[in-house]
Amino acid sequence: MSAYPPDQGRLITSLTNETVKAVRALHMRKEREATGLFLAEGLKFIGEALDQGRTPTTLLVGMEARAHPLLDRAIAETRRTGGDVVTVTHPILEKISRRENPQTVLAVFEQAFTRLDDIDPASAPCWVALEQVRDPGNLGTIIRTADAAGCGGVILIGDCVDPFSVEAVRATMGSVFAVAIARATPEAFLTWRAKWSGSVIGTRLDATHGYRDAPLSAPTLILMGNEQAGLTDSLASACDVNVKIPMRGRADSLNLAVATGIMVYAVTDALADS
Amino acid sequence: MSAYPPDQGRLITSLTNETVKAVRALHMRKEREATGLFLAEGLKFIGEALDQGRTPTTLLVGMEARAHPLLDRAIAETRRTGGDVVTVTHPILEKISRRENPQTVLAVFEQAFTRLDDIDPASAPCWVALEQVRDPGNLGTIIRTADAAGCGGVILIGDCVDPFSVEAVRATMGSVFAVAIARATPEAFLTWRAKWSGSVIGTRLDATHGYRDAPLSAPTLILMGNEQAGLTDSLASACDVNVKIPMRGRADSLNLAVATGIMVYAVTDALADS
Repeated sequence: MSAYPPDQGRLITSLTNETVKAVRALHMRKEREATGLFLAEGLKFIGEALDQGRTPTTLLVGMEARAHPLLDRAIAETRRTGGDVVTVTHPILEKISRRENPQTVLAVFEQAFTRLDDIDPASAPCWVALEQVRDPGNLGTIIRTADAAGCGGVILIGDCVDPFSVEAVRATMGSVFAVAIARATPEAFLTWRAKWSGSVIGTRLDATHGYRDAPLSAPTLILMGNEQAGLTDSLASACDVNVKIPMRGRADSLNLAVATGIMVYAVTDALADS
Repeated sequence: MSAYPPDQGRLITSLTNETVKAVRALHMRKEREATGLFLAEGLKFIGEALDQGRTPTTLLVGMEARAHPLLDRAIAETRRTGGDVVTVTHPILEKISRRENPQTVLAVFEQAFTRLDDIDPASAPCWVALEQVRDPGNLGTIIRTADAAGCGGVILIGDCVDPFSVEAVRATMGSVFAVAIARATPEAFLTWRAKWSGSVIGTRLDATHGYRDAPLSAPTLILMGNEQAGLTDSLASACDVNVKIPMRGRADSLNLAVATGIMVYAVTDALADS
């Protein structure tokens, strides 16, 4: 392997460096909200971002990062758009990522929430709305699933976990850049939903309608409730129909990300077949 | 609330108590393998265990645990079967569970692996086999899904994460007691699989068969591969058919627990309909 790199920016070795401190602070929701920034880890994520026209505000390259055309591209694109490129030591990567085996390239991006009114429902066959989702891993996994199934995006209703937390972003595996992410109060959501032209399907354990039996028209909006409490009555009653995934064993519920995956594929399969 | 309890066993207040040290050690795989024990947290889990005829070898009741008929039952059943019941302080609960808000009742159980040859495939319409699963949260979530869908159990092939780790057990939400859990080398699995009377379905991203189009006969065995590498060629070629869940967006894969959930429901729905 030839010596690398020609130019990875200035070398930072101190944990008290201001750039390092600012990036580490992005583990805190308060700091993410104040700055509008978030942390993404790994070259795969950064490649997804670049493909979506998103460039890092700060690119942190580990001293042991291997030469890769995508890394060259990331460095060039970051500089071209006025971002900062720095080289950091392994202990700094560990501290920032809070992991023993950190990715060797980290990047800071601007958060991008889509405004509810800027969503074009017709741009995708299926959309997902989540009420008061609590677990960042679940939220990230749902964003990944929505992307994989060709959904347009994920709408967060009420008091939800932050989709730009480090843990949620990790679970998206890069899909955080690929689908629209919106947020709304329950009231704003209900006003917006009133104009929805396709089907709106709620998922509730106490529903009687089978989850594969609901008549669907595109675009279909799937509503999923909170991990513990499920969908609230006010949102469930705003759906065209509420459906249930059958529980055929002893467990009385599914993990939220799994249930959402089953619903999303039931809907997108049905719409693709029709 | 009336004063509680009449008798919750001896009070332990020291983190260096031998019982506390032994329970804390169950976070380590080596210790779980040496003792054949594991830790389960919360009264809901313990209730699931009791319903399955499983009783704790040690029951740890927090000083602030509220009176509950299920707790009375757990205490009585633990004593009846020769287990140890102790009361512990909140700091001890925190240390054992490694959580800021621990459950107020913890319990140690004996691990129960089912031998491959003791599995009766005909006892359930669907079974799940996982090759080299790496993430304890995924494994626990899959055990929960298998239970919810009425599957008979989960077979772990090759070098898998421990289903009795604290994190995996948590993600099962109690289903660790409800379904069979077996483990096998790839060679032992292939020998056993040769006698399987129903369908054996592999899931691979490079398969061409749609995941809803495979002809199925019960009992159906679903094979899922490792999070990064997918199903190995040797196991994929031992399947009757390999199928693919369609990727309709930008993401090139699903989370393993989500993909397994989609497969399990596709199969159990189809078998229930037939």
